[in-house]
Amino acid sequence: MFPKESGIRQAEIVVIGNEVVSGLIQDSNSSFLSLRLQSVGVNVTRITSVGDDEDSIRTVVEQALERVGIVIVTGGLGATHDDITKTVLARMFGSDFKKDDRVARFLENFYKSRSREVPASVKTQWEVPTAATVLYNEKGTAPGFLFEKSGKKLYSLPGVPLEMEYLFDKYIEPELASSCEFGIWHRVLHTTGISEADLWARLGPVAPLEKWVTVASLPSHLGVRLRLSAFSSKVEDAMTRLQAAENLVRSKIEDCIFGKDDETLESKVGELLLDSVQTLAVAESCTGGLIGHRLTQVSGSSKYFIEGAVTYSNQAKRKRLGVAQELLDKYGAVSREVALAMAEGIRNTAGTDIGLSVTGIAGPAGGTESKPVGLTFIAVSDRAGSECREFVFHQDRGRNKERTAQAALNLLRLRLINVNDAVQKMQGENQ
Amino acid sequence: MFPKESGIRQAEIVVIGNEVVSGLIQDSNSSFLSLRLQSVGVNVTRITSVGDDEDSIRTVVEQALERVGIVIVTGGLGATHDDITKTVLARMFGSDFKKDDRVARFLENFYKSRSREVPASVKTQWEVPTAATVLYNEKGTAPGFLFEKSGKKLYSLPGVPLEMEYLFDKYIEPELASSCEFGIWHRVLHTTGISEADLWARLGPVAPLEKWVTVASLPSHLGVRLRLSAFSSKVEDAMTRLQAAENLVRSKIEDCIFGKDDETLESKVGELLLDSVQTLAVAESCTGGLIGHRLTQVSGSSKYFIEGAVTYSNQAKRKRLGVAQELLDKYGAVSREVALAMAEGIRNTAGTDIGLSVTGIAGPAGGTESKPVGLTFIAVSDRAGSECREFVFHQDRGRNKERTAQAALNLLRLRLINVNDAVQKMQGENQ
Repeated sequence: MFPKESGIRQAEIVVIGNEVVSGLIQDSNSSFLSLRLQSVGVNVTRITSVGDDEDSIRTVVEQALERVGIVIVTGGLGATHDDITKTVLARMFGSDFKKDDRVARFLENFYKSRSREVPASVKTQWEVPTAATVLYNEKGTAPGFLFEKSGKKLYSLPGVPLEMEYLFDKYIEPELASSCEFGIWHRVLHTTGISEADLWARLGPVAPLEKWVTVASLPSHLGVRLRLSAFSSKVEDAMTRLQAAENLVRSKIEDCIFGKDDETLESKVGELLLDSVQTLAVAESCTGGLIGHRLTQVSGSSKYFIEGAVTYSNQAKRKRLGVAQELLDKYGAVSREVALAMAEGIRNTAGTDIGLSVTGIAGPAGGTESKPVGLTFIAVSDRAGSECREFVFHQDRGRNKERTAQAALNLLRLRLINVNDAVQKMQGENQ
Repeated sequence: MFPKESGIRQAEIVVIGNEVVSGLIQDSNSSFLSLRLQSVGVNVTRITSVGDDEDSIRTVVEQALERVGIVIVTGGLGATHDDITKTVLARMFGSDFKKDDRVARFLENFYKSRSREVPASVKTQWEVPTAATVLYNEKGTAPGFLFEKSGKKLYSLPGVPLEMEYLFDKYIEPELASSCEFGIWHRVLHTTGISEADLWARLGPVAPLEKWVTVASLPSHLGVRLRLSAFSSKVEDAMTRLQAAENLVRSKIEDCIFGKDDETLESKVGELLLDSVQTLAVAESCTGGLIGHRLTQVSGSSKYFIEGAVTYSNQAKRKRLGVAQELLDKYGAVSREVALAMAEGIRNTAGTDIGLSVTGIAGPAGGTESKPVGLTFIAVSDRAGSECREFVFHQDRGRNKERTAQAALNLLRLRLINVNDAVQKMQGENQ
């Protein structure tokens, strides 16, 4: 949020659709719009969702236009009988309709490339309000509109996220940026493996940080995100302050931070593997493939990720990884000894530099008194040796799997950093 | 949504929190509340999100109370200085505060079990408005409140989903259900492998269906959900109509429906494997482990899911699955021939009844003119033989992986249904 009394421009978002107010789908457009508007100096002060109902739409939009200078409406622009946004807004602005040739050509080509005629219902999409500026949509069949009155702007965008984002990027952001006096810029630092309370304990008093930025922390079961925000009339000034704040945070909790903004734990691990020219193979039991899935979300991961073995059965652990039957008998599949044997086994059989393994009880069934649901062992094996960590996660099956994958990737990250540090140190000593 | 003019009770939801209006987090509480309210005969007509700001909260809540009889406020009940909901509502209702002993005891025990004193900031949580009924929260430190005035109800709940849901289940739903004259019940039928347009073409005119229920279709990149809704004063009557509508839909598109309500494609596949007493192993390339991850989301999947091989490199395809180098050289890793060899290879090496495989180009890099990004082959091998399907998905890396996993599980489902049908038919013929 912007500082109060900053004279910053204010906007409201109006979400139209029975499927949203009735709970069938969650609105994700508003958070996209709100974040992006801040960087062009616009503060969203209210988000209102209403159904596809003329009276409600009219009232909500009119009241929003009384309160703020910019209103962005999403949804209700499709070609079905439910979609009435265009008609209602045209009526509000006393506008007629006319055929827009550019929209018509686009629709004809759109259907021609699919070897079809334009359906009758879709033809209504080329009828546009004469009072509006058309926002041409190349990602779908519904154009957007800009209505202006008494210096206030009302944008109407389709509800499909891809199309909404396209029109925002193409029309709204450039227009608002050109008249921007103040903006707010964010930097998000992603941490994992530390609780919110411990994180703040290590960060210490917030005052030195708030000299530069405002700070918000947002915990989830996978870690805590720290959001730093800088309000300024100049992007350079904001960036300087964000960097100063980031440096301060890093000086306190560097080891817990795996990335910033759009970086993910798997992209960070990928970078570290590329930097150290190492290959990786993974042996998963309780996570069922989730670690491999996350590693391969990164484009180019085939350069370092060689293979994964989802050894769900004991037979697979023996056959694919060479885990000894005696270990399985003596310690059980969920044990430190088997985790280490899995990590070493996948490293050997895959012929990679590093082997990573997990074995645990995801639940809800399968727990015992000595081995409760959530008990998990994570091991990593590389040329420097092997290590294993024990965790007990206290959540449902899905979240226990997610926490296991997160902890495994983080253990790998920390080991790669230490190895890379050690290599750099060696190189330094040799100079 | 309820039929208009049904005299149904109306509610509004007010979401409080800077983190929501500023886009840092998405509100997921409203869709939970809206869906659940419908089954106790309450229609949500508006959802409004505002920041932690006294004037905004006050205005929005007052206006909502003018329009409807039930208002549910979520968020702003934490123990930090940002959280002002309790104070603002108490002021609105002219209420003092008093210490609530039950909340105090709960907080003392809550911290004692963590070997800590109650922090000073948290002690404010046991101060409750005298004008409100306390909704005791056993899932967290913030109690909820019910304020009543002139027959209107205002519920204030914490924003943490787990706590919000707990208080809704414990206090709000029973109270609203006891005074419910009409309710609305939903059934969601999940389809995949068919476009929304083709689905409606096969369903035919909607009128026969609308004799029983109202229908909404919701497409995503993984399939189309059909939501059937029945409005009634009696749950039995609603269930009868939902069943009649479901039967009608199934008679048209049975093969496309993989489940209803909370059922998932992976849980359906699991059922079919258990029913036919078959085991499964999976060889994944482009999906990187996502299919194994989804299969193992189902508790008890270890009964039929034996192992997965994430054979990302050609070397792994040769070594783990026995795919011949000549096939890789002649046809390439992304080919019908290699997909079939992978499915047969994983079935043989894992010793399972069924082998499932995928190989494709997830993108954004790696495409060529003859093999574009999105090209994917999916194969399944069982005692009856092998089959392979070719797809071209047109989305980003993440969605191409998701569509591939979905199509693979669906191919497996269809094959299992046919095999089960064939087995039943054989058994029938033998009787």
